Amino acid sequence: MIQIAVLGFGTVGSGVVELIDKNQDAIRARFPEGVHVKYILDIREFPGSPYADRVVHDMNVILEDPEVSIVCETMGGKEPAHTFSRSALERGKSVCTSNKELVAAFGPELIRTAREHNCSYLFEASVGGGIPVIRPLLSALTQEKITSILGILNGTTNYIMTRMEDEGMDFDEVLKIAQEKGYAERNPEADVEGHDACRKIAILSSLVAGKTVRYEDIPCEGISKITTEDMKYARSMNMAVRLLGMNRQEEDGSLYVRTAPFLVPEEHPLHSVSGVFNAVFIHGNMVDNLMFYGRGAGKLPTASAVVADVMDCARNIGRNIPIYWSDEVKTLADPSTESRQFFVRVDISEKELARTLFKGAQEVRAEGMEGEFAFVTEEQTEAEFDRKTRSLATLKNRIRLLDLGK
Amino acid sequence: MIQIAVLGFGTVGSGVVELIDKNQDAIRARFPEGVHVKYILDIREFPGSPYADRVVHDMNVILEDPEVSIVCETMGGKEPAHTFSRSALERGKSVCTSNKELVAAFGPELIRTAREHNCSYLFEASVGGGIPVIRPLLSALTQEKITSILGILNGTTNYIMTRMEDEGMDFDEVLKIAQEKGYAERNPEADVEGHDACRKIAILSSLVAGKTVRYEDIPCEGISKITTEDMKYARSMNMAVRLLGMNRQEEDGSLYVRTAPFLVPEEHPLHSVSGVFNAVFIHGNMVDNLMFYGRGAGKLPTASAVVADVMDCARNIGRNIPIYWSDEVKTLADPSTESRQFFVRVDISEKELARTLFKGAQEVRAEGMEGEFAFVTEEQTEAEFDRKTRSLATLKNRIRLLDLGK
Repeated sequence: MIQIAVLGFGTVGSGVVELIDKNQDAIRARFPEGVHVKYILDIREFPGSPYADRVVHDMNVILEDPEVSIVCETMGGKEPAHTFSRSALERGKSVCTSNKELVAAFGPELIRTAREHNCSYLFEASVGGGIPVIRPLLSALTQEKITSILGILNGTTNYIMTRMEDEGMDFDEVLKIAQEKGYAERNPEADVEGHDACRKIAILSSLVAGKTVRYEDIPCEGISKITTEDMKYARSMNMAVRLLGMNRQEEDGSLYVRTAPFLVPEEHPLHSVSGVFNAVFIHGNMVDNLMFYGRGAGKLPTASAVVADVMDCARNIGRNIPIYWSDEVKTLADPSTESRQFFVRVDISEKELARTLFKGAQEVRAEGMEGEFAFVTEEQTEAEFDRKTRSLATLKNRIRLLDLGK
Repeated sequence: MIQIAVLGFGTVGSGVVELIDKNQDAIRARFPEGVHVKYILDIREFPGSPYADRVVHDMNVILEDPEVSIVCETMGGKEPAHTFSRSALERGKSVCTSNKELVAAFGPELIRTAREHNCSYLFEASVGGGIPVIRPLLSALTQEKITSILGILNGTTNYIMTRMEDEGMDFDEVLKIAQEKGYAERNPEADVEGHDACRKIAILSSLVAGKTVRYEDIPCEGISKITTEDMKYARSMNMAVRLLGMNRQEEDGSLYVRTAPFLVPEEHPLHSVSGVFNAVFIHGNMVDNLMFYGRGAGKLPTASAVVADVMDCARNIGRNIPIYWSDEVKTLADPSTESRQFFVRVDISEKELARTLFKGAQEVRAEGMEGEFAFVTEEQTEAEFDRKTRSLATLKNRIRLLDLGK
């Protein structure tokens, strides 16, 4: 029997304990030895919980118990999660985590520590909740040159975009509903300003590069400026607005990474990913397009991904599961040199100026928007686009277009 | 350096050799030792090919070379693929295959042979072409109770359905185009009658059950009876016709498996899977819905899946990668007891009879179809539905509806 400890008995942690309990039969069918939660570390007591007798308050109990071979870090935050994870790995205990903040900040250090101590540091649940996406990158696609990743990586913002789109509600209104339903946090900044999606695309990009893509280096724009008017135009173009974490590897090795809202054409499989679902669209030079779709958050889906890592560690006790992600920082391509089309809205009074600045632009019309001039530009660099829009005094919004070919 | 042999230098086999050649850098970035194709087995010579000097005609050359640790079986068909695969495994050489016919017929035997000789028998490419779907089932979802799988598992039929739907062409016309484009074979029976999809859902169902689901036991219906008229109705209901290989695990352990065309509502992610793409939609009791999407066929995508298996074997030389699929036959649930809704078309003259037989049926209208009465039934068992339709003399067609909740 593999003995494990769960750090943090919050949403994900309690999901891990519940899953291992309820699905023990399924687990034993494929791993006859079975997996047992020996300890739950939390500062709180849980009187009345069926797991109350496993709760401990001192990490040293776990660290000093040689029976514990795997630790699930489901505390979130940087400390004490970082210290606890490192200490466990140094004692040869594998760590499985859902903590994207920690992985984005200290991934390579913890991966190295695991390697040095013949155990593993796995983090499937840190990106895309229950969707197996890190594991395919690490084990199913190592023969591929990954040329691009486009991810709907944040369920909160995708829920907000979808409701705005379907029901014509505005951002603040939907945000409030999302908060009431528990899909958005009281302080929604990390989600709506794109920081969460940005950390996740940083993790995926690091795995593709084999080096560290720092999330601080990634241009990051959220969805708080998307309006019901933008949605009207999107609908008239048969497009949907989606917050994407994306990267693109050029043939010369340069890597563009960005988090921003994009207009996604109907033909693209990401167009139909709605509500709290997430999806990761991957292009490899041989396999062509792949998409992985599922629940990007939630107690049990996220717990499922953590336990998937536990199962992998359990099958590899005493062995390191290799992950190629060094702490060498990957220098990203200058984001201002990236080319694409843009959707732009200005006041009708600047129609002629806009037409002069953006030769070849295609006008876009939407019902009730007669006081504006809206258009889609030809492909151009971000720098060129920014230079031109500086001349527009009445710029209402601009949204990047997802190129079907990239 | 890991030395491998490729059996059969046809479409997939030559893709494997090309991929390993072109992506050697990517492979070495994650597996520094590298992988090299030492032999290509084929009855033909390939003068002028850059790989001509590796071609051999005698399998014994490969079997007797201790340097060869992995064999890619990309010959297709049962013999000599079966004998060659078994002989390789008996000598401790892992086998990676794209041969779904062989896997569906002899999977458990070859898996056991591999286990007995500390090597592996892997078959990612046998289902879903380049899409990682077997690997997630074996490694990312072993903590889940898989309650259902719905798969668009055959690109040829999906291409035909999509073209019929988009362009109003009839089955024979589109089949001819598909044959000209190389998407359908000269003898298209295995694809259009559902046998290919049936083998693939048999493989997936066996992996879920851990026992052998025999494809001969699966009710199998193809797409050759789907007409342009059916497509008109489908459009009017915002549904698409898709050939699905599907299974459903009931709480009591009984397993329904079926291959048939289904009407898929717009809200379902499989609805937008078009053309030659494949997708596998999986429901697990904890992770909820997942979908894996990509190219289900084609030289390089399929080769990519074969090489993904090669990489796994290369990382596990001397070790068996466990697969739970015993040769005990899984008894399937009686297909006539399965419940669902059905779409039905009869001549207008039988409208009253149909209304009497199918209480609560919802009429469906489509342009130009005034001489018919079409409807969607309430949920009922297959047996009940069959009994009622036997009274209808003018039954034109009936198509099963995919239940969004299952």
